[in-house]
Amino acid sequence: MDDGTQAIRLTDEQRIDWLRLIRSQNIGPRTFRALINHFGGAHAALDAVPALARRGGSAAPQICSHQDAEREIEASRKLGAKLVAIGEADYPRRLQMIDDPPPLIAILGRASVFAMPQVAIVGSRNASAGGVKLTQRIAHGLCEAGFAIVSGLARGIDAAAHRASLSTGTVAVLAGGHDRIYPAEHAELLDAILPCGIALTEMPLGWEPRARDFPRRNRLISGLSLGVVIVEAAKRSGSLITARLALEQGREVFALPGSPLDPRAEGTNGLIKQGATPVTEAADIVSVLQPIMGTELPAREPQAPDGEASQSVEPASDERTRIVGLLSPAPVLIDDLIRLSQSSPRVVRMVLLELEIAGRLERHGGGLVSLL
Amino acid sequence: MDDGTQAIRLTDEQRIDWLRLIRSQNIGPRTFRALINHFGGAHAALDAVPALARRGGSAAPQICSHQDAEREIEASRKLGAKLVAIGEADYPRRLQMIDDPPPLIAILGRASVFAMPQVAIVGSRNASAGGVKLTQRIAHGLCEAGFAIVSGLARGIDAAAHRASLSTGTVAVLAGGHDRIYPAEHAELLDAILPCGIALTEMPLGWEPRARDFPRRNRLISGLSLGVVIVEAAKRSGSLITARLALEQGREVFALPGSPLDPRAEGTNGLIKQGATPVTEAADIVSVLQPIMGTELPAREPQAPDGEASQSVEPASDERTRIVGLLSPAPVLIDDLIRLSQSSPRVVRMVLLELEIAGRLERHGGGLVSLL
Repeated sequence: MDDGTQAIRLTDEQRIDWLRLIRSQNIGPRTFRALINHFGGAHAALDAVPALARRGGSAAPQICSHQDAEREIEASRKLGAKLVAIGEADYPRRLQMIDDPPPLIAILGRASVFAMPQVAIVGSRNASAGGVKLTQRIAHGLCEAGFAIVSGLARGIDAAAHRASLSTGTVAVLAGGHDRIYPAEHAELLDAILPCGIALTEMPLGWEPRARDFPRRNRLISGLSLGVVIVEAAKRSGSLITARLALEQGREVFALPGSPLDPRAEGTNGLIKQGATPVTEAADIVSVLQPIMGTELPAREPQAPDGEASQSVEPASDERTRIVGLLSPAPVLIDDLIRLSQSSPRVVRMVLLELEIAGRLERHGGGLVSLL
Repeated sequence: MDDGTQAIRLTDEQRIDWLRLIRSQNIGPRTFRALINHFGGAHAALDAVPALARRGGSAAPQICSHQDAEREIEASRKLGAKLVAIGEADYPRRLQMIDDPPPLIAILGRASVFAMPQVAIVGSRNASAGGVKLTQRIAHGLCEAGFAIVSGLARGIDAAAHRASLSTGTVAVLAGGHDRIYPAEHAELLDAILPCGIALTEMPLGWEPRARDFPRRNRLISGLSLGVVIVEAAKRSGSLITARLALEQGREVFALPGSPLDPRAEGTNGLIKQGATPVTEAADIVSVLQPIMGTELPAREPQAPDGEASQSVEPASDERTRIVGLLSPAPVLIDDLIRLSQSSPRVVRMVLLELEIAGRLERHGGGLVSLL
């Protein structure tokens, strides 16, 4: 990375610990971050998980074994994929700045693509011929301006976006493992992407993507990118989820207008009505993105990859009861929990971690939590 | 008018004087206003015109005779049309507030339509089937919400907008005289408009519309309306002139998005990129206009229809030379002329009037003037 910050590099043992932690039950990117921040490293966090779960009111979650983690790393290596940790040189800088970055991503292809500024192009699977043509035109224009194209390897607009940027650099973000390409007929497209581009996933090898994995994956598409271009999108389509996530992440949202009589334009026209930037050609996008390309990303609290374990707190049982009593399935702010419980922030955060590990808590964006 | 202001009513003689003045050579709506404001009435202004022209450096302009004015009023009456002066009860209130309202308009049909809030719908003559369908849908929705529809009686979008609002109220603004319907095949459409609607023009009977009369007419379309909806428009089309005039007049501009591959959408997509409100259905327009419907229009300096003639000033010849010397074909601010010439505002305005009547000066909006 040329931005003056020092890239970290995990040891083999640290990488195994990181992988074990993120592959363990009830531990997603947010919980991972909270655990690492609290315990100072993945090793200490793994040790603490069983006790946390017990205090949170459940049996110990399934912990990914040392052997399984080693096996995944080895199998990835054989496939040519590399597991890259947040903070390492090959981890895309912009993705690191989202609210819930994956601690590890598996990448296959040319990591140097991440040094290019990236723009996502997404849209309906059921694309019109016109939509495909526009996608090509806009992707070509963006490639000429030096952007790499990010998309989701889906049929329709996504595939057209990748195909138009094969020789300049394209990033396919997968919802499943590297050995579970979806749709299967796009395995060849992926082969064409890798010489100058990259495939990326946060999911383990062998992971068959389920419906809910696609919205989760979409946050990576927007997270990697300076902006997201929506080409065609019906009402309530996955592309609109990507647009919403992009907005939440502070990314630019561009939409192509279409006839009000065309159902494939309902989503994009709706976005434009809500304030997305209307675009008809690549130059419209470049003129918005070029001024912000050089700007610094918002700084985030650094995440110590490993270090001194902070002193563990064990909340008193009545404190825990009071805090749990303040939670419900409706999301509340952690700050409000601290205020209302009159417990210390440390204690509140520990109780939340316990509940999370016990599979009883969900973390939303913006410091909101709810009971499951 | 129910807005608390008192409508004026011209006497027959005053109406003849107004008509003579506006039908005279080199006298457009802005010069008319300047003359009336300076001389306190049309009669005094008519008397002053020959001297003004002489001082401005030309022979007296052709003045419309008393007889010709009487003849026009009588011929209009026979056709069923009425000449309504600015400030009179049947003169549309909103039109009165533009920078260059016509002093007299000839109306045919139901003047009560002017009591309804009005929205203009305009677009390409060479409309697509989809454009016509959308026009109908949006016009119907606006009519249901209580709006009258204003348009230009052209082929394509304009005609569709009128047809969709025949029974609720529609306003056709003509670029020529009431007896010179353009295009001629829309005479039947006009007959269908009049029972519940109105036709309006500022041009005399017998006036065959020339190309330059259409942009001039377009300022009335936007001037009558709370907002202008552009349905389909190619680049550099007349509808875009209407949109620009609407912006200058402080009216809302709405545009229907279309595919970037459709040349008929280039103009509307361009408007949306420049900040026009994107709309796909009538509700989008109604939600913007309803909150501003009750608001007061910006007050304008009242224009005395007739009154005391203000004392006439005759600028000294060296003052006139100095002021003329400051003018060029590039527009300058009248305020700057006053400052630079060190003459009094009264004197500067008089010199400008002289030049105008002599056919040597053009008035632009925003207090700008240039030599012709």
